[in-house]
Amino acid sequence: MTASSTAIPTHANCLARDAADPLGGFRDRFALPEGVIYLDGNSLGPLPKSVPERVNRMLVEEWGSHLITGWLKDGWMELPLTLGDRLAQLVGAQPGEIAVVDTTSVNLFKMLSAALAMRPDRKVILSTSDNFPTDLYMAQGLAALLDKGHELRVVDPDDLDCSLDETVAVLMLTEVDFKTGRVHDMARLTAAAHRVEALTLWDLAHSAGAIPVDLNRSRADFAVGCSYKYLNAGPGGPAWLFVANRHQQTAHQPLTGWLGHAAPFAFDLDYRPADGIRRHVCSSPGVIGLVAFEAALDIMLEADMGAMRRKSIALQELFITLVETRCGEAGLRLVSPREASETAPFLRGGQVSFAHPKGYGIVQALIERGVIGDFRDPNILRFGFTPLYVGFADVFDAVEHLKAVLDTGEHLNPRYTDRASVT
Amino acid sequence: MTASSTAIPTHANCLARDAADPLGGFRDRFALPEGVIYLDGNSLGPLPKSVPERVNRMLVEEWGSHLITGWLKDGWMELPLTLGDRLAQLVGAQPGEIAVVDTTSVNLFKMLSAALAMRPDRKVILSTSDNFPTDLYMAQGLAALLDKGHELRVVDPDDLDCSLDETVAVLMLTEVDFKTGRVHDMARLTAAAHRVEALTLWDLAHSAGAIPVDLNRSRADFAVGCSYKYLNAGPGGPAWLFVANRHQQTAHQPLTGWLGHAAPFAFDLDYRPADGIRRHVCSSPGVIGLVAFEAALDIMLEADMGAMRRKSIALQELFITLVETRCGEAGLRLVSPREASETAPFLRGGQVSFAHPKGYGIVQALIERGVIGDFRDPNILRFGFTPLYVGFADVFDAVEHLKAVLDTGEHLNPRYTDRASVT
Repeated sequence: MTASSTAIPTHANCLARDAADPLGGFRDRFALPEGVIYLDGNSLGPLPKSVPERVNRMLVEEWGSHLITGWLKDGWMELPLTLGDRLAQLVGAQPGEIAVVDTTSVNLFKMLSAALAMRPDRKVILSTSDNFPTDLYMAQGLAALLDKGHELRVVDPDDLDCSLDETVAVLMLTEVDFKTGRVHDMARLTAAAHRVEALTLWDLAHSAGAIPVDLNRSRADFAVGCSYKYLNAGPGGPAWLFVANRHQQTAHQPLTGWLGHAAPFAFDLDYRPADGIRRHVCSSPGVIGLVAFEAALDIMLEADMGAMRRKSIALQELFITLVETRCGEAGLRLVSPREASETAPFLRGGQVSFAHPKGYGIVQALIERGVIGDFRDPNILRFGFTPLYVGFADVFDAVEHLKAVLDTGEHLNPRYTDRASVT
Repeated sequence: MTASSTAIPTHANCLARDAADPLGGFRDRFALPEGVIYLDGNSLGPLPKSVPERVNRMLVEEWGSHLITGWLKDGWMELPLTLGDRLAQLVGAQPGEIAVVDTTSVNLFKMLSAALAMRPDRKVILSTSDNFPTDLYMAQGLAALLDKGHELRVVDPDDLDCSLDETVAVLMLTEVDFKTGRVHDMARLTAAAHRVEALTLWDLAHSAGAIPVDLNRSRADFAVGCSYKYLNAGPGGPAWLFVANRHQQTAHQPLTGWLGHAAPFAFDLDYRPADGIRRHVCSSPGVIGLVAFEAALDIMLEADMGAMRRKSIALQELFITLVETRCGEAGLRLVSPREASETAPFLRGGQVSFAHPKGYGIVQALIERGVIGDFRDPNILRFGFTPLYVGFADVFDAVEHLKAVLDTGEHLNPRYTDRASVT
């Protein structure tokens, strides 16, 4: 169904859809300030109400009461793996394929190192110009460190297929474009990479919790992701990495910390990798951030991913329809794919982006009205549609605010010149 | 003053010293369970009472209320640097020389990479067999990745001086031995390294908050450290790194993430390092862990480091005296240096270690009695003396428990066979 084929919805119509929404009950699980319509969960998810209680319990009852013994008694030491096993349920992985650890960038460095070492005769890391820049920067840093002639080849997304050849060691992609929400077809591109015996490394920062992810069915080799966008674990929450079972014995990465040692408490002078995913855990895990993620993830695992995706698309299509009908003369241009699918290939992720020459001012004026989206240079307005806490009437109201901003010229206020923004 | 020169103290004597202790007021700032004597702050500091309140405020008032805007409004984005500047006060660094980021192991990888790149013609990383193994493992991982003939040369601590020659690129040491508490002389060894034009990389995991640290006066080049031992930031709390001002323009490390970019929100496809310490921050900071550290650090900055060191030594000397007089026949052998100094060279850090063939059982039996120390293979009993929440009567009582364990043979209980322990 395309957005343009829907009839123009009314506010009453939206309220009725909210009343009938099978996911409607989840909204109360999140702390959202009165009067705020939050369309930025693609950048930072809101606070799950269960998180402060869970974090406080860890602080007071675990750390405060058990002190050092909490590492074993409260399972802190194993959290990177136990939480990884829970996350695996959401992204189509097996237990033992995911560790929750470090940051997305650091994990990308680890996984890219491991993948390149498995293709020693190839020198090309293939990626796209729509990748989130940190992934490109980390690959540049690794290639320079290796100093063996590796090339980060950054191509236009449309040129990916013709760029996949026998020189490619690793196809490194972010599944969902952070600016436009365009989705790369993970299964198809992984198969194409495998046909030339390249490995794949997927960044799922804008995928996990946003769209159905099935790492095993897609035959992905390596993946990384974050927790603080669609997974609601809090600002800078712990990241994760995935290594397919079939690569676990051959995948070695260079950040060989003591907790990835086969016998960490033997304190040997020489590193020996632990079996399995554990070798990719370097350091004592940051427990406070991990339990926040655990509490947030529990909510996601309660919800049905298919229902979430269905509602996310419905919210997005409503938004596109309303923007184009209510604000059609204002010069907003849809830069996200117009089509989206409930199943792979997904085409569009969890966000809708428009371009407008005064985009920065529009986003700022909307924020002042309590409608929180964000802006990306040079002219992109991003809006995330997260079905557990955003409703149809929210979307209706958001577009009315957008129309009011454009009609009154609030966005032309000269103080909207500072371009500071965050991912 | 050596431990053996003190008269044998009585319980009343210890209570009197506690009553006169200028740091006595700090004990109430920490949550310590009733009946526990905590001598393991060298592994994991206890919960500062201010931490749950500060963390909850960040969760509810910042994240919950400000959502994405907290990155700027609440200063989250700058926390690695603002908190680094506060930490700098404790370890003798200038503002702009420290970033609080990632883990100790990852930071060591970054700093070692930077240092090796500054000495391209040299191939030796010199370290000691008393270094914490993760540092050696990370150096091994980096050397293997570089594949340019770097050698990690691990020598006996007593052979350091004669091993420092013109082949050494980096002298990489942990200032305080994690098993014995023996302290390397940072200023003297740094000067010795500089005489052969080697750079120094200091791991201060067991130093910061334990002994006076003066990075600038010692002329240290690079350093890393953790927050969860003597700095009480909670299990796996955020780590930190130091780059001396004189190296900030030439120090480049390979984990080149987007937040270390000169213009992170320009989303350029190519990495350009930010000026100064910021280039060593890769990723969105883990805010929950950072604010916990901030609250914990505030307490340390209130206390006088000289007074802390004085009391720490007094507690340690009391412990050594009492163990040797009360438990003299039990076969406990002091493996820490017997001498300690208030000022550099410090000789012994914040802990006292004894060796005993039944060490594991003794530590476990003590824990059952509420006296928490820890055990390190093969036979080391470690006890940390952290002056803000441990008193003289605690030390007296701890030794009485130790004597009772040894007298009754509680430590010989056959269930003490599992050697699981944590750093």
